[in-house]
Amino acid sequence: MELLERKIREEGRVLSASVLKVDAFINHQIDPVLMDSIGREFADRFSGEGITKILTLESSGIAPAQMTGLHLQVPVIFARKRRSLTLNDQLYTSEVYSFTKEQSNEIAVSHDFINADDHVLILDDFLANGQAALGLLHIVEQAGASLEGIGILIEKAFQEGGEGLRNRGIRVESLARIASLENGRVQFVEKVGAQ
Amino acid sequence: MELLERKIREEGRVLSASVLKVDAFINHQIDPVLMDSIGREFADRFSGEGITKILTLESSGIAPAQMTGLHLQVPVIFARKRRSLTLNDQLYTSEVYSFTKEQSNEIAVSHDFINADDHVLILDDFLANGQAALGLLHIVEQAGASLEGIGILIEKAFQEGGEGLRNRGIRVESLARIASLENGRVQFVEKVGAQ
Repeated sequence: MELLERKIREEGRVLSASVLKVDAFINHQIDPVLMDSIGREFADRFSGEGITKILTLESSGIAPAQMTGLHLQVPVIFARKRRSLTLNDQLYTSEVYSFTKEQSNEIAVSHDFINADDHVLILDDFLANGQAALGLLHIVEQAGASLEGIGILIEKAFQEGGEGLRNRGIRVESLARIASLENGRVQFVEKVGAQ
Repeated sequence: MELLERKIREEGRVLSASVLKVDAFINHQIDPVLMDSIGREFADRFSGEGITKILTLESSGIAPAQMTGLHLQVPVIFARKRRSLTLNDQLYTSEVYSFTKEQSNEIAVSHDFINADDHVLILDDFLANGQAALGLLHIVEQAGASLEGIGILIEKAFQEGGEGLRNRGIRVESLARIASLENGRVQFVEKVGAQ
């Protein structure tokens, strides 16, 4: 997606060969107009799949999921990272290890909001090693729902997450695919071949 | 706001005389069409204030803030609850005690995204004792920015937060104001007088 790639080039900051900081428009400050375009793009890509629910993870997935849900006209669920006092019902839970934060989080979704009739689109901001996507997938499986695909804003294609998911036959749509962050420079995957 | 009040009546669950659960459409599952209407409503109410930034708190404030930002065409910042490894710049910080979760969180906003020229609209899902709003206000003050108002989805008008903020001369716009949750029933504040 040209618009997102341009934004990454202009406002992203490469902190190391594995860390790209996008705090200026995705995960601390949000560009709401960009998020609207992103939501429209995901809605276009998954419009034929009969999606009934969008599942994301707090917090950075919420804005793009909200916009995708608005364009597809379906509810959005965000998995919670900790149990709160008002989230004490029957829960699907999964463990997600964050390499960035070096900690493991239990994520949880109430039984009330996903069931076996649902066709779920998982959305997240980053795909690197795939831990968050696998945690969300595990929740979809527990609900007996159908996974229709995974939408990602930024895939670090030099890490193994995307390949692992695609090898399982899952449709993964990443709006920007980064081949390398070496030498402080963002290099995108060439778009010649299909992803 | 009629639409939000109806949603609260139909899908909210009163857990006690002080706890209203809105997990079905605000803070676990999100109704994206409702959020669009909420964003439009806040944009209308604050359209004359020259807002340059919207400030909210992860996670439940993000969806309504995204929509308000989209309608006002201004960036949204969500304060982070913990320091993450990629959020290690110069930070404005504040301490917020959550009575619901019975814990204190440090919230943080990077210096990069709010400055003395900004006119800030604070948004949050609930206003009860006012702790979160005061924490966000403290961040606006540290930045030397101007606070133009506070937008709230659901105000528990039987708690002291809203009165405290209004007594400080702050414009607080709450889309639904709850007078009581006694006897398992949601009673809204009568709309005869101005709020």
